[in-house]
Amino acid sequence: MAKVAVVVTNLFEDSEYTEPVNAFKEAGHEIVNIEKEAGTVVEGKSEGEKVTIDKGIDEIASKDFDALLIPGGFSPDILRGDERFVAFTKEFMDDKKPVMAICHGPQLLITAEVLKDRDVTGYKSIHVDIKNAGAKLHDKEVVVCGGQLVTSRTPDDIPAFIRESLQLLK
Amino acid sequence: MAKVAVVVTNLFEDSEYTEPVNAFKEAGHEIVNIEKEAGTVVEGKSEGEKVTIDKGIDEIASKDFDALLIPGGFSPDILRGDERFVAFTKEFMDDKKPVMAICHGPQLLITAEVLKDRDVTGYKSIHVDIKNAGAKLHDKEVVVCGGQLVTSRTPDDIPAFIRESLQLLK
Repeated sequence: MAKVAVVVTNLFEDSEYTEPVNAFKEAGHEIVNIEKEAGTVVEGKSEGEKVTIDKGIDEIASKDFDALLIPGGFSPDILRGDERFVAFTKEFMDDKKPVMAICHGPQLLITAEVLKDRDVTGYKSIHVDIKNAGAKLHDKEVVVCGGQLVTSRTPDDIPAFIRESLQLLK
Repeated sequence: MAKVAVVVTNLFEDSEYTEPVNAFKEAGHEIVNIEKEAGTVVEGKSEGEKVTIDKGIDEIASKDFDALLIPGGFSPDILRGDERFVAFTKEFMDDKKPVMAICHGPQLLITAEVLKDRDVTGYKSIHVDIKNAGAKLHDKEVVVCGGQLVTSRTPDDIPAFIRESLQLLK
């Protein structure tokens, strides 16, 4: 079973955290919530969902995890202002571990400069940013690239996002 | 005196709206708040500042205005998901009217695809997006490009942002 790092901070899109996380747990995977400091409680933007942070970014290393989940909302844009989260994200891509990003999640991948020539989707407002990052943009509910990177657009795409993510976590 | 369109929606960075708007008004300029519908009240992300929308985007045209202000926060990312705000923004750039964008404000300009070869700054998290849009990125409190486009990074830069904006509104 996989140990999945989830990078998440305030203003995350609630369902893009809760639904994949619940599905991954049900499938037997381990979830570790990561933000600046362990014990912090971060809050979703739409439903006020609260998530307690398990590990601070300085306490962990990407080698301790098998996969990375980046829920959307405004959380990814906040996180990418901090080089530690950008470097952490880049390591998963470089190590060819599964990376699952939905909605604004690809913003972290853009700042990590790992999207060149990748097949990617994301939330409508970041489509131009995805293209400008050198990726091949697809307006589809889910895109899987290189057997590693799973991206989706909105909460409506969550079932497809979970389905393809679970394939990679097998 | 100039008639300034302000495109703003929820989760705007409070001071990046209030301080420029107050300074522009004091200098005798007219401010028109624009979102989807007149009468809507939108709310800032940090201090809960409330702004009443004067005109809906479908009621107005860029030719009725002399300049455009784009406050930051998450407001610009929400607005750029709506083609009407992207087209409205592009017209100001195409018509060489003053455009003043702070923090995440340049996101609307990125989606409008008007930043190629422009000198631009913005909030740290969107620096890669600004570069990928073909702009020349500067990490400075204020950048003025072509006597038309004024950009700044954060609330700390507001005095410089107001100073250069007022020069263009003369």
